[in-house]
Amino acid sequence: MTQNPLTIGILLFDGVEELDAVGPWEVLASWARTSPLSPAVRTFTRDGLGVRCSHGMHVLADTSAEDLGPPHVLVHPGGPGARALAADSEHLAWVRSLRPLVPLMASVCTGALVYAAAGLLSGRSATTHHASLDLLAEIDPAVLVDGEARVVDDGDLVTSAGVTAGIDMALHLVARLDSVEAAEQERRRLQYDA
Amino acid sequence: MTQNPLTIGILLFDGVEELDAVGPWEVLASWARTSPLSPAVRTFTRDGLGVRCSHGMHVLADTSAEDLGPPHVLVHPGGPGARALAADSEHLAWVRSLRPLVPLMASVCTGALVYAAAGLLSGRSATTHHASLDLLAEIDPAVLVDGEARVVDDGDLVTSAGVTAGIDMALHLVARLDSVEAAEQERRRLQYDA
Repeated sequence: MTQNPLTIGILLFDGVEELDAVGPWEVLASWARTSPLSPAVRTFTRDGLGVRCSHGMHVLADTSAEDLGPPHVLVHPGGPGARALAADSEHLAWVRSLRPLVPLMASVCTGALVYAAAGLLSGRSATTHHASLDLLAEIDPAVLVDGEARVVDDGDLVTSAGVTAGIDMALHLVARLDSVEAAEQERRRLQYDA
Repeated sequence: MTQNPLTIGILLFDGVEELDAVGPWEVLASWARTSPLSPAVRTFTRDGLGVRCSHGMHVLADTSAEDLGPPHVLVHPGGPGARALAADSEHLAWVRSLRPLVPLMASVCTGALVYAAAGLLSGRSATTHHASLDLLAEIDPAVLVDGEARVVDDGDLVTSAGVTAGIDMALHLVARLDSVEAAEQERRRLQYDA
């Protein structure tokens, strides 16, 4: 494992919703410190530069897409910037190019709109922010939209509902990749028992 | 209000727990966009420079403590860095100096340890991360530790439990400063209904 650790890349971009990215980061980066899988959890941007998030927070990325390479798990957050990316043919081509190389693609909130626009959700179960469920079905009517679940696990695609559901999604990834006990430990640490 | 907006300062420091800061930021900065109170929500560091958070995320601050001036509401997050600050006499003196100038001091998670070490919680109801409740009572046995509530409102002091409870605390601030309806609107936007 030391030669080829489990890499998890959390994509940052201008207009990313702060909590969409930081919720999963908090869960996954904390879990990584103690997991026997020794996952490498990294934030990254396409160009490696920093971003200005949806509400104006400035965050620097750990690395670039090129330096990261295709991660084992990609987390695509949402936010106003994700809606723009869902209409950006270059970004969509990049996302499609990753699909055969990335075993598990996950999204938070309106990150799912990007996957749908890239054609990755046809015939697949998925969800997004409650206010964007209709838009998800408009982008691709073949998406099996699940408007009830906070996290939808469809094998190599895991999508989640709005903003805070990214925390649930990340806890689900910990349970799936490591163990239910590891996920419960993180949940307790986060005091996420509301 | 335009000459003297309601200012809310979220303190950042090295070793701040990412979600402790970004949870309240997400709530408060979003609320600020539509609230008739036109609050000015800013992240700040003592020196205005960026920080490396608990799990390694690099965040740039909006401003310095000096440029911000005493905010109407101070949010002190927790994290490993907060434990260090609770033993840092210079930081504690700064926090004490703010008390007469800041109408409402709030904390997330182990941020309450700093307030306790600064002597601000004697005889007051307060909470902190579940794993630090004993430590809170050790730092100041006169704290009325509430180990049940996620948010403890003691008037000019509002403390919250661990990590994700900072989201609840921020929603409480929105309800208190603006309206229950505004807080509910934010909660729905965050899909924080787990």
